[in-house]
Formats: sequence, C-alpha cells, structure tokens
Amino acid sequence: MASIIAENPLKLDELQKLDAYWRACNYLAVGMIYLKENPLLREPLRPEHIKKRLLGHWGSSPGLSFSYIHLNRLINKYDLDAIFIAGPGHGAPGVLGPVYLEGTYSEIYPNKNEDEEGMRLFFREFSFPGGIGSHCTPEMPGSIHEGGELGYSISHAFGAAFDNPDLLVAVVVGDGEAETAALAASWHSNKFLNPVRDGAVLPILHLNGYKINNPTVLARVSHDELTRLFEGYGWTPYFVEGGDPETMHQAMAATLEHCVLEIRRIQQEARSGSAVTRPRWPMIVLRSPKGWTGPKTVDGHKIEGFWRSHQVPLAGVARNPEHLAMLEEWMRSYEPEKLFDSDGRLVPELKALAPVGSRRMSANPHANGGLLRKALKMPDFREYAAEVPKPGASESENTRPLGRLLRDVLCLNPGNFRVFGPDETTSNKLDDMYEASKKMWLADYLPEDADGGELSPDGRVMEVLSEHTLEGWLEGYLLTGRHGFFSTYEAFVHVIDSMFNQFAKWLDIANDIPWRAPVSSLNLLITSTVWRQDHNGFTHQDPGFLDLVVNKSPDVTRIYLPPDVNTLLCVADHCLKSTYNVNVIVSDKQKHLQYLNMDAAIMHCIKGIGIWDWASNDQGYEPDVVMVGCGDIPTKEALAAVVLLREHFPALKIRFINVVDLFKLQPASEHPHGLNDRDFDSLFTLDRPIIFNFHGYPWLIHRLAYRRTNHKNLHVRGYKEKGNINTPLELAIENEIDRFSLAIDVINRVPGLLVAGAHVKEQLRDMQIECSRYAYEHGVDKPEFADWRWPQ
Amino acid sequence: MASIIAENPLKLDELQKLDAYWRACNYLAVGMIYLKENPLLREPLRPEHIKKRLLGHWGSSPGLSFSYIHLNRLINKYDLDAIFIAGPGHGAPGVLGPVYLEGTYSEIYPNKNEDEEGMRLFFREFSFPGGIGSHCTPEMPGSIHEGGELGYSISHAFGAAFDNPDLLVAVVVGDGEAETAALAASWHSNKFLNPVRDGAVLPILHLNGYKINNPTVLARVSHDELTRLFEGYGWTPYFVEGGDPETMHQAMAATLEHCVLEIRRIQQEARSGSAVTRPRWPMIVLRSPKGWTGPKTVDGHKIEGFWRSHQVPLAGVARNPEHLAMLEEWMRSYEPEKLFDSDGRLVPELKALAPVGSRRMSANPHANGGLLRKALKMPDFREYAAEVPKPGASESENTRPLGRLLRDVLCLNPGNFRVFGPDETTSNKLDDMYEASKKMWLADYLPEDADGGELSPDGRVMEVLSEHTLEGWLEGYLLTGRHGFFSTYEAFVHVIDSMFNQFAKWLDIANDIPWRAPVSSLNLLITSTVWRQDHNGFTHQDPGFLDLVVNKSPDVTRIYLPPDVNTLLCVADHCLKSTYNVNVIVSDKQKHLQYLNMDAAIMHCIKGIGIWDWASNDQGYEPDVVMVGCGDIPTKEALAAVVLLREHFPALKIRFINVVDLFKLQPASEHPHGLNDRDFDSLFTLDRPIIFNFHGYPWLIHRLAYRRTNHKNLHVRGYKEKGNINTPLELAIENEIDRFSLAIDVINRVPGLLVAGAHVKEQLRDMQIECSRYAYEHGVDKPEFADWRWPQ
Repeated sequence: MASIIAENPLKLDELQKLDAYWRACNYLAVGMIYLKENPLLREPLRPEHIKKRLLGHWGSSPGLSFSYIHLNRLINKYDLDAIFIAGPGHGAPGVLGPVYLEGTYSEIYPNKNEDEEGMRLFFREFSFPGGIGSHCTPEMPGSIHEGGELGYSISHAFGAAFDNPDLLVAVVVGDGEAETAALAASWHSNKFLNPVRDGAVLPILHLNGYKINNPTVLARVSHDELTRLFEGYGWTPYFVEGGDPETMHQAMAATLEHCVLEIRRIQQEARSGSAVTRPRWPMIVLRSPKGWTGPKTVDGHKIEGFWRSHQVPLAGVARNPEHLAMLEEWMRSYEPEKLFDSDGRLVPELKALAPVGSRRMSANPHANGGLLRKALKMPDFREYAAEVPKPGASESENTRPLGRLLRDVLCLNPGNFRVFGPDETTSNKLDDMYEASKKMWLADYLPEDADGGELSPDGRVMEVLSEHTLEGWLEGYLLTGRHGFFSTYEAFVHVIDSMFNQFAKWLDIANDIPWRAPVSSLNLLITSTVWRQDHNGFTHQDPGFLDLVVNKSPDVTRIYLPPDVNTLLCVADHCLKSTYNVNVIVSDKQKHLQYLNMDAAIMHCIKGIGIWDWASNDQGYEPDVVMVGCGDIPTKEALAAVVLLREHFPALKIRFINVVDLFKLQPASEHPHGLNDRDFDSLFTLDRPIIFNFHGYPWLIHRLAYRRTNHKNLHVRGYKEKGNINTPLELAIENEIDRFSLAIDVINRVPGLLVAGAHVKEQLRDMQIECSRYAYEHGVDKPEFADWRWPQ
Repeated sequence: MASIIAENPLKLDELQKLDAYWRACNYLAVGMIYLKENPLLREPLRPEHIKKRLLGHWGSSPGLSFSYIHLNRLINKYDLDAIFIAGPGHGAPGVLGPVYLEGTYSEIYPNKNEDEEGMRLFFREFSFPGGIGSHCTPEMPGSIHEGGELGYSISHAFGAAFDNPDLLVAVVVGDGEAETAALAASWHSNKFLNPVRDGAVLPILHLNGYKINNPTVLARVSHDELTRLFEGYGWTPYFVEGGDPETMHQAMAATLEHCVLEIRRIQQEARSGSAVTRPRWPMIVLRSPKGWTGPKTVDGHKIEGFWRSHQVPLAGVARNPEHLAMLEEWMRSYEPEKLFDSDGRLVPELKALAPVGSRRMSANPHANGGLLRKALKMPDFREYAAEVPKPGASESENTRPLGRLLRDVLCLNPGNFRVFGPDETTSNKLDDMYEASKKMWLADYLPEDADGGELSPDGRVMEVLSEHTLEGWLEGYLLTGRHGFFSTYEAFVHVIDSMFNQFAKWLDIANDIPWRAPVSSLNLLITSTVWRQDHNGFTHQDPGFLDLVVNKSPDVTRIYLPPDVNTLLCVADHCLKSTYNVNVIVSDKQKHLQYLNMDAAIMHCIKGIGIWDWASNDQGYEPDVVMVGCGDIPTKEALAAVVLLREHFPALKIRFINVVDLFKLQPASEHPHGLNDRDFDSLFTLDRPIIFNFHGYPWLIHRLAYRRTNHKNLHVRGYKEKGNINTPLELAIENEIDRFSLAIDVINRVPGLLVAGAHVKEQLRDMQIECSRYAYEHGVDKPEFADWRWPQ
C-alpha cells in the first residue's frame, strides 16, 4: 500500500545541517551554470563574473542533490554500500555539487581543490569548451549512467545490482524519462532480481512535473492511478510530496529510512533459507517543484514549479541588471557565508555529514567497475571444436558448440558472468547453457514449467522480450565490473541501435580517462540472420546494424563474421577476454557447412582475413580473379561458385579469400585492425577483378575499402533489400549472392572469359531459373543445392 | 474496477453458430500451416498432402480469430465501423482465416476462390515461396500492422483512431509484445485521445501465457497486480479467462458488448457538449490457452497451454504416421464437413454471421487508407520566404518559417493533418504552430498551464517523450489516409531506427500491391543537429540515421539537406505533397546564414544539386577545385574556406556546389533521384580535386558515389565522432569540417599549390589554433568567425 510516513525523524540540529548541506549543493549548481569569477560572492555580482554562454539544466538539479544527501545520511547511519544513478543526467549540477562537496572531485581532478580557486575552476569548467559536460558523463566520479539519452536508468541500476548482494543502487528516474519506451518496460525488472543473491534497487521517481516545455504524463494523473500503476508493476510506492524544505526533509528522511529498512528486512527474510519468492520492493515517488528553491517568477512568468525552470531560469543576466540582481539574491538565499569557510571549504560540521572513503557514492568502486573486475575463468575453447576432417564436407549448427562453451563459462564464473537474450536462447541453439544455469524467473511458476521451462530464481540466463531492458542490464553489469554475452535476432538488434551508439560513446570517453579502470567488452551475437528467414520473411531481413557500428570510434568497435563452428568459438573466446570493446559477432543459428578444423580456425582468426588455399588454384601465380566470402552463407555460395567455374574453366586461376574480421578491410590508419596497404594489395592484387560476397548490405564494403588500390575492380554482392518468404537459395538468388550469379559475375569481369563464357552463362541462368521453379513448386530448395558439399 | 461480466448473452443457436464459425477459422489456420492438398479432408490424410516445410505460428492464432469473430458479431449488431490490428501479427493464420471466410480474400486474389480449389491454393501459398508471408503483411486485406517486429500495435491503433470519430480500432496485444519497451510506453496513449473528435481504441490483451520458449511476465503476475497495472495506466480492464469454448464464447460476447456500449456511452457523454475530460476507456484481458483447441499433448509433452504450441505443434507429420493421425484427428475435431459445403464454401448459415461490404474489417477502407486520403490543402510556401537580398549576408533560424507553414497547414486541414514531436516543438523553433493548434493533452491541467502551456484537448500537435509512441501514432495516422509531420533531435532519431526500417519495408511492399491506394509520405525533420550541441555534448552528436536510410528501398527513401530557410520551405512543401516515401529532412534549428531567395531556392531544389555561381569563379572554365557543401553548417564553412582561398590565391578557380537532395549523388541506376554519369561528371569534373564538406559521417558520401568517374579525387569531410562540449567552430575544427581545414585540404590537393601555399597553410593553422584558444578562454567563438558573412 502506498503511504506517506508520518514521523519526523530528524532532530532540529540534524535537520538544519542537512538543509544547509543541501543549500550548499544548490549554491554550487547555480554557480556552475552562471559564474566564471567571484565564486563565493565575496563581492557584489557584476556582469564580468558571468559566463558568456549560460548552459546547463537547473530544473532537476535540486531534487537530485536532495535525494543524494538524504542517501548520504543513511549510508552513514547503516554503513550502506550504495551507488547513485541519475536518470535525468542532464541535471548534472545536482550531482556534481555533492560529489565536489564530499571531496572526490578534488581527489581526481586536483586543480579543482576544495577552496575558492578550486571552486572557481569547478564552476568555470562546467559545460564549457575544454571542460566537463553538462550530463553525468564518464568524467564524473561515481557515474555509470550519463543520462544524455533518456530511458535506461532503471535497467542500468538492475544490471549493477545483479550478483552484488550487499549493494544498494539508488536510482532517480526523471518523469520525462519515465515516458520513454525503454523506461516504461524496465519497471518489470523486479521479476528478474533475486533478493538472496542480488543487491537492491531503490527507484526514486522524481515527479518534477515538467519536461522541456511540457508537463509530464505521470505528474498529471491522479494519485490513485499513480499508486496503482506502480503496484501493478510490482512495487510498493511511498510518496514524498511538497515544496517546503523543512517538511520535505522530514518526509524524505523518514521515507528513505523506511525503504532502506524494508529492503534489509526483505533481504534478511529471503536470505534466511526459505524458498525465494518475489518481494514487493519499495520505491519512492518524490514530487517536488521543478527548479525547487530557484526564482519563483521572472518577468511575470512562473519559474519554480514550471517548465520554464528546465534550463537557465534567468536569461541574459550579464546584460540585464534586474536579472543580475535576482541571480545574486537567489544565490545569497543559500547563505554561502554560512556554508563555506574563508578558504572556500565546506565548513567542518557540514563536511562531517558526508560518508568517507569508498562509502562515498562518488568513490564507490562499483561505479568504477574495472577496479573490481576479475578476469573470466575460461575453459579451453578448443575442447568444443567441431570435427572437420575435410573442408566443406559436413554441416553443423554453428551456434550450438558456442552454447556449450557459454555453459561452462557460466559454471566457472558464478556471480561474474551472465547471458542475455530476448526469449531466443533456445531458438538461437544456445540452450545447452541451461545445463549450467536456468533462466532467471521470479514471477509465478506453474507445474508445466518443470517440463522444458528451464526457469529458476537462481538462473543467470536473462530472458525478457525487451531488447532495451536486456541491453541496459548488461551495460550496468559490465560497468560494475562483470562480464556478459548478449544474443539477439539480427533484424531486431536495430531496436537498440541508439543504446549501442550511446554505450560506444561512453566506452570511447571512459577509455581515455586515466582513473577509470578497464571494463569488460560488450559481446553481442547477432544471429537468426537475414539469409535464413525462411518463414519470417521481409521484416526479419536486416543486416544493417553493422552500418551503424562502423561509424563509432575505432577504439571501441569490432565486427566478426566467423563462417563456421570453430572460427565462431575462436572469435568468442577472444571477445570474452577483451576489454573496452563492443564486439559484434554475426553467425547464423541454422546448419551450415564446416570449413576449418580448430588449428586452421585459430590461424585464420588470428589473421582475421586470409586465403583459403584448399579452395584456391592460384598457387604461386597471380590469380585471374579473387573470390571473397564474408559470412556463413555468402562463403558457401562463393565456394559453390568456384566449383561451377572450375568445371567450365579449369584453367581459370581463382584465389579464395575469407574475411572474419571485417575491419581488416579498412586502412590501418582508420582502424587498429586495418590491414596496411601492402598486405591488402598482396591479398586482393593490384588489378584483378574481385567478387566479394558479403553477408550485409553490399555498400558497406565499399565504404571500408574505397581507398584501396584495387577498389575499382571490387564488385560486392550482398543483401539488397529484396526478400519475402523465400527458400535460402531463392533468397540468395533474389539478392544475387548465389553461386550462379557469382559465377556469371566472374565471367563478366575476367577479361577473355566473356566470349568463351557466353554459353556457360546461359547454362547458369537456366540452373538459376530451375532452382526458383523448384522452390516455388516444392517450398524447399532442390536437394542437390541445399545439400551441396565442397568436392572431396 | 476490473470485473467479469456474468451474463450469458448468447442464445444456444447463436452460440453454436459462433463456435462453428470459430472452428472454421481454426480449421483454416491448421490447414494453412500443414496442407498443400486435400484441403477439405475428403480423403484420409496422407504424407503427400503435407507441405515439405511446416512454417507458421499456431499458438496465438485461435485467440486472434476468436477475437475477430466476436467483433464481427457486434459490428453486425451495432453497425460498427471497425478495423482489426493483430499485435501478434505472426499469428496471421488466425486473421487470414476470418478474412478468407468473409470473402475479401477471394475478391482481391481471385484465384483463392471460396471453393475447394481456392482453399487448396490458399493453404498452399501460406508461408510458401512466391506466396504470402506468415505475418499480417501488407498483402493481407484489412491489415495496417504487420507485427513482424513487435511493440507497435497500440500506437498504430491510436494513430488510426485519431480524427476518425466513428471508428473503433480493436487491437489484440500479444503478451510477448507487451514486454517490449515500445508497447509498455504506448498504453499511456489514452491521455492523448479526445473522445469527441477521435475514435476509440479497444485493446484486447491476449494473455496466451507464453512467448517462443518462455512464460510471459504479464501472465505470471497476480490478478490483482494486473488489474492495478492497467488501472494505473488509466484503463478499465475486463477479464475473459478460461479454456472451455462455450463458457468463453459467452464471456467474450458479454464483455465485448459491454465494452462497446461503454465506449458508446463515453463518446455520447463527451459529445454532448460538456467539457472534455479523460475517460477511463475499457479494455479486455483475454486469458486463453496458447494453441487453444490444438493437441493437448504430443510425445508426452504438454502442447496446448504451453510454449510448445508457439509454432508447429506436430512436427514431422509427413514421416511420422502417429503424428499424421493426430493431425487428422485434430483437423477433423473442427468437423469441416459441417462447416463447408460440397464445393468447399462456408455453409450459408455461417456465412451470414460475417458483416458485409465495407463493414468487414478486412474490407474497411480505413485499413487501405489511401482510398480515403484527401490531398492536403497547402498554402503557397513562397509566402513564408525569408528575405534574402544577397547570398550569405544575414542569419535566420531555419526552422521558424517552417513552423509558420505548418501552422497554416494545420489551419487548412483540420482532422487531416497532425504534427508529432517528443517535447521539442518549441525547442526546435516550430512553436508558431501553436497559434493554429495546441498540444493535445488530456491528462490533468493546472492553472499555470495558461501561461505558455499551449495545451488543449483539441490540439493536433502531439508531444510525448516517447519517440516510439509518436512514430507509431504517425504511422497509424498515415496508413489510414491522413498526413503528418514528425520533428525530432537528430541523435535520438536512432531510438526509432527499427521502426523506420519496418515502415520503409511496409511501404516498399505496399507500393507494389495494386489494390492498395497510395498513402501520404512519412515526413521526418531531423533537427537540433550534431553541429550545434553546444551544451549537450557527445551524446547528442550522431548524424548516422542517414546511413540507415540509404539501405532501404530507393522507391521509398528520400533525404534532403536544405541549407537555409527558403530551401527548407521548398523541400517541405514537396514532401508534404508526396506519397509512399519516407522523407528525411535534415535542418538545424539555430540561426544560420541565408543564401538563396525564394526563386533561387526553388530552382535549386528542383535540381536538388547545383553550382552556386555567386560563390564560384570558374565561369566558363574547368575549375581547379570543386568545393561542395551539403548541410547548413558545412555549407557555411565551405563558403568561408572559399573566401580564405581567394584572399591568398586570387587566380585559383573554385567551383562551389551545394547538395540538397542527397540521392543525386548515387547513380541513376541505383536511385530514381540519382544523376546520370554525364551530369555528375559535368558538375564534379573528370579529374579535379573535390573537397566535399558533409553534414554526416563522411563515409556515406563514398558509399553513394564510389562508382563515379572522379571518385578517386573525392575528399569528404564530415563528423568523425569527435566531440564534447564545444563551440560550433571548435567542433567543426575537431572534425576538420572548418574553413581552415578545408582551405588546407585544397592547398594539399590542387597541383602546384603546395609549395606556394606552405606559408598560407601555416597561417591557417595559426588561425585555427587561435580560434580554439579563444573558445577555451571565453566559452564562445571569436565574433569575427561566429558572425562571418559572405563578402558583399
């Protein structure tokens, strides 16, 4: 039941100190937005003290610092191990303030000392070129969530809490953010958190009331609806509502303490040994005025408690004496002279309110997870190898052995590794994992779950049909120092395009921050790919995620397209051991031809690209044509084209190249994995036609290789957005990545072959038509093509 | 209050007929999945009657047809104007069945007659190469929602209902789909629907219980939680729960009728003239077994009511005689001999149950919205022109006049046009629109809203902080024959990447379907762009959406980068009048230089690309270098580079090109807007260096132009993922799209300039450094650069 806690737990002295501390936070927030000089208002405010551009968000800042310092009180009282996530991360002034006051900021950035000059620089560099951003960026100690793009605070918080039984993750959710799709779904995360083994998440929904220019939905529904909504989501909401600081301090102190104790009670009960059930975790709804304690009205317009306080409430202060006076009055209302001593330090009696050392939320090592990161214990991936006595002779489901590897990684690393996927682990043939760990489930159970449900409150395979929630959990899990693996359908990885973008940006920046320790890579298996959507059709055909990945920082991005079981194992092993990357692995789940035994696979993956001698007949000579396969099915079709060509043109010298590491194609100057031009030219020749059969949209290859010497002879085939319900070969034909189209390409491109090959082309076209005819008649591919093998 | 309606409204005869009709639907659904011959089971089932590949989803099909035919009953009883949206669109057999039975399918696809041979073809072509897909694809009459990617059913439904006061949009939401982020947010759409002017949305949450391999969250929380959740979302949920068909028919009939009457009551009350308030609309929670009426157990495993019934419950029927017998028994359990006459037609007494003509949900013109589409009444866009007496002499906010145009489009087209944006209409300087139409808001109001709230229940500007919900509303609005405009922050348009992908696929297919009438284009203004994220920094810098757009069908995709007010107006006018496109317009909201008066802008936009003579000095000659600007800020910097170069090298012949229509760069064979090679070559020369200053990631230009004659001399500058809190010029410098870098590029690339230019390069580098120094010191750009003008 929702209820407001009635007691007033703060004694007058404590109340006054807490409020003073909060005033210090608010003072700093205003200072950051406005001042470049005169940080302590030692002299009357003059235009030259004001920054030329006023940038920053005041609106949510006071509520953020209010929450932060009330958490501080309980950290001290109960020795809590807690971190703070600011959903409205653009309210960074409300977090930077307390972070600076508790000293962490000065420890990390020594020129921002806790003194007047340090404060001046701290103000000046906020949202300033060459300074720090106006969000909770990676540069902010204690931050694992920037909040630049909204929606991921709750899922990040749960990711941080998983397998951290003693951690409390306090997360302020903005009511603007709460309207986003990602956030709306993530409230259900409480069905996936085990109170015995995992820590706790305490959401504080901050009903500020407004976004940039609009009221928020949740602030404009009835109290009853709001209560029901969160009860329906499985939480117990407690309301802290009002604008009077004194009353609000008492209410927040009482409510927060009640929640902390309730969390302890839930955990103790769950950990006492009885069966694990889903608790109704507490949460707080903090309804406070937007721009709280700021100017009430400016130029006749309501500011405090309205959207007009979202960013900079007083504009043009440097040119408007009235506004300048209001700013000074506003800042002085916090009584800085009582808060800071003559050196500009927070006075000792306030300083004493903050936790110390790593109990400070800004210095908690969980928020700099690399510090806590333990390397994964890895089994020897070679033990999962597929037997491949001869290349191209047999088929396997490529992902299944990977599932066994992941199973054993789960076994070896309890509490340090999780696997994520939207209801598709079995569909993606990774279900051997369930031998080691079931699917985490803490909603209701039914008897039939015993037969194939694979559910358990102790599971560490995380499945829910929200890619957003999964990605957010994984990011939170990684940033707090653990390891993970995410598999998802290729077409629908676009659902989290923007999350990938933002996470890649976070890693790119974090990577360059000396005090941040490296975190594990985000490993993303893209499967159920475009070429095998036999019954899902056009909506499930979209290999375009790679086009997005290549735009992000080369320090972060890696793309692998292993063509078979052993190369996939080898790539996965490498990715699981890496840090600071987003590793994208593309591998279909259906049965595919196997090419390389494990030794060959290792050699091939180390190079990332290479000639397959067994498929080439140019030994010692410059080839007539270079045939390239990149991806499982494109490689098979390219090989089949080679066979067709050899049959008709035995003297034709074909070099066969397979690409596993896509960035090998980019110049070494553009990506750390890029081949230098000499190596590229020696593989791809200076002037011979290259027929490149690619898994994705063909233009991506041109985008990577356009500066290469032989680019003018590079002809790429790939998915061209042509598809419906097709058999595998028919889909290949529609997009011209099939063996026949490729062989025809070669005939068209190799000088001298065109005339001799005219008749062959006709034959190949007939075969192509016959394939389509057969598929349309029988609904399956002709067995001789479906079961095609490399000649032994 | 949640409650189950207790009465049994169906008389025995009606009940029996309804159930028979449902059996016919289920029979067809099974037939579609399994049979290629013997559709009416005239003879015992033999392996050769079975399709070689069994593809399709049985699990949700019975619940879908159950809902469909109960709606039919009320359409007849109350003469409802209704359409049907199947969230779990992969349960297409459950929709195709009733669509076929009511005759629409045969009308549209005459070879699928309502007779035995028609049924055989109907079965055979389901999920079959060359046939129709296994989702509610565009080929399905009555469908405006494919459901291939999950999450958008509710938002599509609301989009369809807006401004259609007499329309009832029934929408089945899958409980798998309900876990997605997009769906979770979209329940709040009820705060944005006006009961007077808009139609009604009736959600039927289908608690099937399972996804592919997992239980669903909403099926595994308590009844109480579920009730509270939807009450919290503002709905009144009614439960229809069980597995016994007879009881369920009675419960569904009673509940659905109650809901329809409740909707009527709400609408009548709202339309009686009193003030509009937000009603608590009814919704239904239909909890029925997954794979309802299918095999109970197979090989000892539970099938009906478990995840195992998700796709094809009986596998390998052609090879497994026991399974074949079970299939026959299953199909015969529907008693086809009582349902279909000797010709294979539905017996007349059942046929009579379906609505007729356009009252059939499959033939309702709202679901083929192009039929109802009225062209927009457009003001003359030239009347909103900015005065541009001379190029490059003055600055304006580029989007503001567009806001005025949109204002007047709103005025001229009440009920036929809406504008969408996530809380950013004012921020994007489009707020003049509010003079014509406020922001739709039907949550609570506060007194302060009167001063700048711009809220109204009658508004047609739609703002909520969920890009997913907005995009879904817009798609639903367009597909039912209306017009719209969406503006959003550039970096966060990635939030709806996957929705764009899916919608582009829908348009691509729909475009080729003769019976679908053209719908209006989806117009997407991308603003608050990468180059002006002065205080938001790195997270807000991402121009990569275009890289996604170019992968979709050239029949659908259009990209425009108008550099100033008049070109933006001209482009917007064109886009608003177009059909079947996704028009992406990139234009920043800040003040930018103005280049073209309206006449020049029209000429320029018609060509889409062209030489700006006033900025060129190669008249009549082959230039030494071609300088290209594409986008507002890149164009300004490129022009400034021209001025720098002329100062130092007055004899240097520079041709200046501006690109508005990005696809002009692609060969004509690849995109209908593409320039032929002759025209391209005459613009870009055969061999002169081209310095191309681009708005987005630079590689995109290479991807479009790699086959052009002079590609080897094409040097593209663009965003390279380098940014933080920067002034505009400093950000340009970081990414080398600034005037100095471009001028240095020219010196490096034009033969003969390198030696003479060494000193100039040094000067330019000094100026660059001075710019950065100034920005770091003052927080703003040096006025001489910030206020730069083309020399007059």
